[in-house]
Order: sequence, then C-alpha cells, then structure tokens
Amino acid sequence: MVSQGIIHQSHNGLFSLLPLGLRSVEKLIKIVDSHMRKLGAQKIMVPSLTDGSLWKKTGRLDTAGQEIFKVLDRHKKMFVLAPTHEESLANILATVPVISHRNLPLRLYQITNKYRDEMRPRYGLIRSKEFMMKDLYSFDATIEMAQKTYDHVCEIYGQLLDHIGISYSRVAAPSGMMGGDQSHELHYVADIGDDTLLTCEDCDYSWNREVDPQLDTCKACSSPRLKQTKGIEVANTFLLGTKYSKALSARYVGAGSQKPVDLVMGSYGIGITRLLAAALEVNSSSSAGLRWPLPLAPYTVLIITPKDGSKESLQTQDAGKELYLRLTSMHHLENEVLWDNRDHLSIGRRLNDAKLTGYPVVVVIGKLYVGQTPKCEVHCVDDNSVHELEIGELQQFLSQQKYSSSS
Amino acid sequence: MVSQGIIHQSHNGLFSLLPLGLRSVEKLIKIVDSHMRKLGAQKIMVPSLTDGSLWKKTGRLDTAGQEIFKVLDRHKKMFVLAPTHEESLANILATVPVISHRNLPLRLYQITNKYRDEMRPRYGLIRSKEFMMKDLYSFDATIEMAQKTYDHVCEIYGQLLDHIGISYSRVAAPSGMMGGDQSHELHYVADIGDDTLLTCEDCDYSWNREVDPQLDTCKACSSPRLKQTKGIEVANTFLLGTKYSKALSARYVGAGSQKPVDLVMGSYGIGITRLLAAALEVNSSSSAGLRWPLPLAPYTVLIITPKDGSKESLQTQDAGKELYLRLTSMHHLENEVLWDNRDHLSIGRRLNDAKLTGYPVVVVIGKLYVGQTPKCEVHCVDDNSVHELEIGELQQFLSQQKYSSSS
Repeated sequence: MVSQGIIHQSHNGLFSLLPLGLRSVEKLIKIVDSHMRKLGAQKIMVPSLTDGSLWKKTGRLDTAGQEIFKVLDRHKKMFVLAPTHEESLANILATVPVISHRNLPLRLYQITNKYRDEMRPRYGLIRSKEFMMKDLYSFDATIEMAQKTYDHVCEIYGQLLDHIGISYSRVAAPSGMMGGDQSHELHYVADIGDDTLLTCEDCDYSWNREVDPQLDTCKACSSPRLKQTKGIEVANTFLLGTKYSKALSARYVGAGSQKPVDLVMGSYGIGITRLLAAALEVNSSSSAGLRWPLPLAPYTVLIITPKDGSKESLQTQDAGKELYLRLTSMHHLENEVLWDNRDHLSIGRRLNDAKLTGYPVVVVIGKLYVGQTPKCEVHCVDDNSVHELEIGELQQFLSQQKYSSSS
Repeated sequence: MVSQGIIHQSHNGLFSLLPLGLRSVEKLIKIVDSHMRKLGAQKIMVPSLTDGSLWKKTGRLDTAGQEIFKVLDRHKKMFVLAPTHEESLANILATVPVISHRNLPLRLYQITNKYRDEMRPRYGLIRSKEFMMKDLYSFDATIEMAQKTYDHVCEIYGQLLDHIGISYSRVAAPSGMMGGDQSHELHYVADIGDDTLLTCEDCDYSWNREVDPQLDTCKACSSPRLKQTKGIEVANTFLLGTKYSKALSARYVGAGSQKPVDLVMGSYGIGITRLLAAALEVNSSSSAGLRWPLPLAPYTVLIITPKDGSKESLQTQDAGKELYLRLTSMHHLENEVLWDNRDHLSIGRRLNDAKLTGYPVVVVIGKLYVGQTPKCEVHCVDDNSVHELEIGELQQFLSQQKYSSSS
C-alpha cells in the first residue's frame, strides 16, 4: 500500500518519496538546517530553470556535457535544469546592490531538487536523475578567509555525519567540472559504491583514486601500505576561488578602496536523498529488513493491536488508543508514534511487516496484555531484543537519550 | 543586500526566494501542513520530470499545449516538467500492489515546485514560470464519497485562509484543462487580478466570468444585480471523477467482489508562492512599505541598536544583546527576533529600512533607553503606533495572542 512504502519508481532513475520516505527526508532536512545555522548560513531557494547564457560564460555548458538537462521555452530560449548552482549564486551577487566588505562572509544555502541526465541511473536514490541536494555557497573577501570558511564547513559536516551515526571516510578529491583549488568528499563505505578510496595504513591519509589513478604509494608519507575500499559519496566540499565570480562579475567593495574585487567562493554539497539511501544500504546490509539510523527513522515507535474478533481484541478494548495517547503525550514522541490499526490482519503478519520496514521500537498489545498486570511485548529492531514491559516501564524505556535524538 | 531582500529576479518569470522570502514561505508551508493533517492527508514528493507517455494517455499533452515545458533526455525520451501531477498520482496508484477498499479514502499531497511556460510572466511570483504549489489528490471508492471529500477540503481551505487573515472570494469555476465535474476557486480580490469575478448582490452566489462569459443575470436567482471585481486565484478545487484513473488504470478492489473498479479522484491546489505574493499585494496596497499578514511575517520583531560612536551607544553597551536574549527566551518568539546590528548606520536609516520591509514590531534602543528608567521605542507597523515601554512591559505587549500565531 502507498502509505507503507518508502519510495516508488515512476521511471528509470526517477522516484517518488512515499510518506515514510518523505518523513525521513524531512528529519534529515531539519538536522541539516540546524547545522547550517551553526555556520551562520542563511537559507534561500533558487529556481531550477537557470539561464543557459550563464553556463556559457563559465564554460560549463561544454564541460558538463550530456549530463545536463536542457530546456527550451516557447521563445527558443535555452535553460539548464540545474545540477548545481554556482552560476546562479554568483549571478545573484553580481546583480544585487553593491556588496560591501561589511556583508562578508556571506553563506547562502538551499535544499532543493537537482537534475542530472545520468547515463546509467541505478541503486534507487543513490544515482537518480532528480535528487534532493543541500548546496551551500560561501563568499569571502580573501582566499585566506575562504580557507577558514572551508575548514569550518568541513568541521560542521563532520559533526552532522557523527550525529547521523553511520561511519564515514573523508578523502581528498578531484575538483572535476567544479574547478577550484581544493576538494574533499565524504563517503559511506559500501561494496556497491562507485568510487575507489585509498587509505594509507601508516599515516591515515585518504584519497579518491580519481585524484591520481597511477599512484601506488601514499602521497603524504610514501608508504606502500594502502587499503582499498569502495565508497558512496554523500557530501563534498570545494574551495572554488574566483572561477565563477570572475566570469560573472560577482564583486565586493573593500574597506579602503572603491574598486570592486572578485569574491572568493566555496561550494559545499550534501546529497539529501542519496545520503538517506546510502545510510539505509550500509545499515541494512546484514538484516532482512530496513535498519534506519535512529535520527532518520520515519517513526520511532509502532503500536500493533490485536486482530479483530480475537480473544485479546475483546479483552483489550481501548488499550491501543490509550497507549497511543500516553506515548504521544511524551514531548519527544509527540509526532513519533504510528499505530498499525489494520486489525483485519494478524499480529504476526503486522509484526513481520514492521520488522521489514524497520520501525526501531514495535510495541505489541497482545496475549501479555490480558491478565492481572497488563504488559506489552516490546521489540527493539536494532539488537533484536524483546522486552515485556508495563506501560510505566515502557515510558521509562522510551525516555532513553537515543530515542529523543530523532524528534 | 542579499539578506534583506525578499525575492530576486534571475530571468523574466524566474525568481529566487531570498532569506526573508523563504522564511515566510516556510511559515506558510507549516500552516498548510497542519491543515492537511486535519484532513488525514499524507505528504509525499513526486518527481517534476514526469513521463511524457502518461500525458499522451490522458490527452493532456495536446490540451495543455505550449504552456508545458518538455525535456528530452540523452536517449531522446520525452518528459514533461510537471505543472500538476494528476497523471503521476494516478500512475502511482495503478502500479503499487492492489488497492483495497480498506485503504480508502486515500489523500496524498506534496509541496513542490511546478513549471509553466507562461506566455506573459508578470507580477513577480504571482505569475511565474517556476512556482511552489501544494497539490493534494484524493482517491475515493464512489462519487458520493468523493463529493464528501470535496466538501471537506473546501471547509479546510476556508479555515486555512481565515487563519492567514486576508479576506477572499470563493467562486464557481470552469474545469478547464483539468476536466471533471465540479470546480471552485479561491481568490484574493485585487485590481491587478487576471480573473473577473461576479457576485450576485441578492443571493451572494459568485462565479468566475469564464464559467459563462455571456451571463448577465445571476445563475442561482436570476437577479440582474451583479457586482464585478478582479481576483487573483490562490487556491482551487476539482472533483475529477474517473478521467485520470480510467485512462491510467488506477483501480481498487471492493469489499464484495474481485473485479477492480476505477478510483474516483479529486485534485486540490494552493499556490504557495503566489498566495504569499498576492497577500502582500493586497495587504500593502495603501502603504509605502510591505505589510505582511502576521502569520506570514518573516520575523515578528526587529531590534535596532544605537549607531556606533553615538552617545547612546556608549551608554547602552550590551543592551541589544540582553534584549535579544530576553525576547528569544519567550517560547513563541524563540526564532522570531532579528537584530539589525548594522551599527555603522543611523537609527533613523535602519528604522526606515525596517518599515519598508514591514517587520510587524520594531524595537529601538535609543535616547529613551538612557535615563533612570530605560525604555524602548516600540513601533507597530500595522497601525503606525509608537509605544514607550520598559522591557517588562514590552514582554507583556508581545505576549498578545496575535503575536504568537506566527510561530
């Protein structure tokens, strides 16, 4: 049923987010927003239809090649359905009233859908034609200040991925079609990853093999002891310099002079839908069902009530509703509890569904609820444990720190 | 400066939402989400790139004509950059595991950017090529149940517009390219509106002139006393029947039989960016600056501190920071206070900027703050009143109900 799925493929490389999938994405967006605030970044939204002439000016209409979707309007004017927005942002800065050094540093980000005409879309949301990305653009007065911004963003990206809880690798990366002076990528390590990552076992320096395909010793310490893994890129950072600001005249006026100077840019991406898909891929590899990182679970708790007409059903009456109200009255669970009231199905069938979907905590009102001291059967999906708890004990159990991080 | 504007035009009919504009949009989204929950609607996200062959099947590839943006991928496969998603939703329902009568009614909505190749884009976000829309799709077992859903959505739409507080007209409307049995539009009344609305002065029946361009008496009571106004359409409702479900085989299985039956659909839009722009247009018509409906104001309070080097600046020291902390410690103002600390500018200059941007409450720490009993100068933009309040009085003033509706 629609309301139980995560995603739905409408075409090769194109996916709808179904209710559970979108809930998870919206949680990730909240986490990203809060980390962007730590950077003092302001949120904006730029159109996906971007003026093709800007892409000509920076030379990317050619370098990006067939991966770009182009759109002609009724007047035959060409737009790029943007995969990234360096041109758009530089153009905004070039066309607003003059930027003063007092306005810097400026950090603007958005979380919107991006487009890429993938040759081989695959692995669902990991490599799709339309995907959600957080893209942050920084504008500084000097390359030194841009480098500080770069280091600060890298630090915040680390905190963000630590919060999600899946381990990751940070590797030196090629600048590719973005250009610029410095680039890193953050990868989740997984066999299905497209990128080959090399890590020096002596000094820990890591890089994407694309940086230097021929290298068979460590670039940092020359050690030949290299470990090779596969990674899925979930975030990247680019110190762009003045490539885009020069081409599109994005300048500021300094304190001591009237002559405008090119802004120094940085560009920082997080693949929202890709990160979610990659996190599920990594986290679920050894289980039959999905295993969500707790902060991204669509709901923390699922309640299952007895099958219609069963002995338990008659004896537990309003227990489902009462439990639902008790749990949602706990502040951090207010929007975190779902009640599977498909009571025409057996408890076993629904419990099986719940484990496949991967709700972290499944609370069953069943046989144990009928008796002197009503107890719930509490299934914790991450460690496969089952607990028999009275309602008060259940509330205490759900007060654990780990269950409040997702709200 | 970027961080002070509302929108930025990147091309004819294409706009970026700058930080203040996006904050307002995100408030509107929250309001819409809460009203959709009242309907029991579930939130999803469908790709903007939609398979052209679906549009062929329903016949809309021709009827929508030049207003549709078409995109070819590298394999020359054609996609429609969707202005609306009836085809996509019917296709999801047609391709998921069989829908049972138990799953109905089903109400799915999204809030995403839509695309229309406008012949004459104008009035900024009111008629643009890329715009944000909330689109809700309902699926019912019978036309009677679909009619009930229709009435319910109309009721909730009324509550939503009442909450925003700008008066509106609800008029009978043509089904146009959507098709179906019944349609209404909700309009903000404004001279720049593209639609002509007629209202009977005797029985109050209202309709869009497009429904029957020739009619010069009331359709309901035959009265010739008609009032004519101009409107900006901000929301619409369509009882679609089975037009899309039949063409795309979106069916369900009833209780008594195994034979699948066409789902009965409804489609319900709210133009998010258009509603915001139209609300500002209507609300600001008689003032020099912007006047936000309170629930959509980007921030409720702006604080202005003395100019650097002024007498007041030396005597008020940390007053700005203290006031900011005091106000943001009030729960409903936690994210609602902005501090204009461009202290190189005079208070007068910043107060003028603040009134143009339309912050509902502007709190000035100035001359009155220097003295035995420090007072703030409090400017209320909606009624042009000025109050002299001590901090405690200011907090009480901001506790009024009207200032908590926007958080």
